[in-house]
Amino acid sequence: MTEAKVRRRVNGRSARVRRSVIESTLGLLREGGIDQVTVAEVASRAGVHETSIYRRWGSRERLLIDAILDLSEANLSVPDSGSLREDLTILATELCGYMSTPLGLAVAQLLSWPAKDPAVTEMQTEIWRDRIASAAKVVEQAIDRGEAPRNTDPRFIIELLVAPIHWRVLVLNEQLEPDLPAKLAQAVMDGVQPPR
Amino acid sequence: MTEAKVRRRVNGRSARVRRSVIESTLGLLREGGIDQVTVAEVASRAGVHETSIYRRWGSRERLLIDAILDLSEANLSVPDSGSLREDLTILATELCGYMSTPLGLAVAQLLSWPAKDPAVTEMQTEIWRDRIASAAKVVEQAIDRGEAPRNTDPRFIIELLVAPIHWRVLVLNEQLEPDLPAKLAQAVMDGVQPPR
Repeated sequence: MTEAKVRRRVNGRSARVRRSVIESTLGLLREGGIDQVTVAEVASRAGVHETSIYRRWGSRERLLIDAILDLSEANLSVPDSGSLREDLTILATELCGYMSTPLGLAVAQLLSWPAKDPAVTEMQTEIWRDRIASAAKVVEQAIDRGEAPRNTDPRFIIELLVAPIHWRVLVLNEQLEPDLPAKLAQAVMDGVQPPR
Repeated sequence: MTEAKVRRRVNGRSARVRRSVIESTLGLLREGGIDQVTVAEVASRAGVHETSIYRRWGSRERLLIDAILDLSEANLSVPDSGSLREDLTILATELCGYMSTPLGLAVAQLLSWPAKDPAVTEMQTEIWRDRIASAAKVVEQAIDRGEAPRNTDPRFIIELLVAPIHWRVLVLNEQLEPDLPAKLAQAVMDGVQPPR
């Protein structure tokens, strides 16, 4: 991986080819989801030979994950509204919105795919851990503000919030209802309140 | 499906063959998980020809789902301890225990598999809905007892409880820690308590 990165830097043409292949892959994902992405189609768009793609990435699966990695580094933002309830609502709203797009759905499907290739499994897990750790900052901020107890597990709170969203989309193949983000944030914050 | 059931009843040999193929499939799942199940191996154990299996089930994927369906009908129990917190802990404990066995893991993987076959997708969704509706009875009981507000959404509470368990196992490929069931039940019941 490190060697590949070095090679990329010293070789301008190689970097351009990589960029072009990754962009073509993401373009196809955006347009039609995972099934749209074939190595032949990516090669044709990027203006390279299929064999170059296989030589560099090894498989369609690894190419897809590499494209997703590229994307993940780009767009991680952490809300900081001053209220944990509000931050959780923002996170859930953004996630629901993203997963309702072809690209967002494809990313979630790819990252949850039961991969045969252990290298791919490792990359999937690493991306999830990064994302969870990033989102968990809203809980850490709340602990620092004194809004949540010191012993709150930030990662666990984020998992409670995001797991049901992935469950609905990936496992139940359901549309996400518009009030789900607020409902989730409320459930995570308040639990089951005793009846008045 | 109905026609197949009728045929099964009037034809003793056919029923025995089905039973034997399903049992062989479940046996292989118990021993080594999904990868262990090949149509050739199932046929050999059940003492039938591979072609008979393909004729009846059409594909390995459908055979696997049919075996799971058979199993699902058998073991759905609903706790009724008189306390929602306790019932949720029992449900989560049972699920975590089951998903830590080769069979339980295989069932969860199969039911979450991104199937290409729309008939399989439909069967997966149906099994999940049945399971959620069954577990949701503990919340309905709590509403009836006056322990949870009338406007509590039973299905949503169950999803909050079980989605993170599936997420940990299927997406993050993690071991489930022993205190997870109690931690989940507490989080679902109490939310994020303000610091004292």
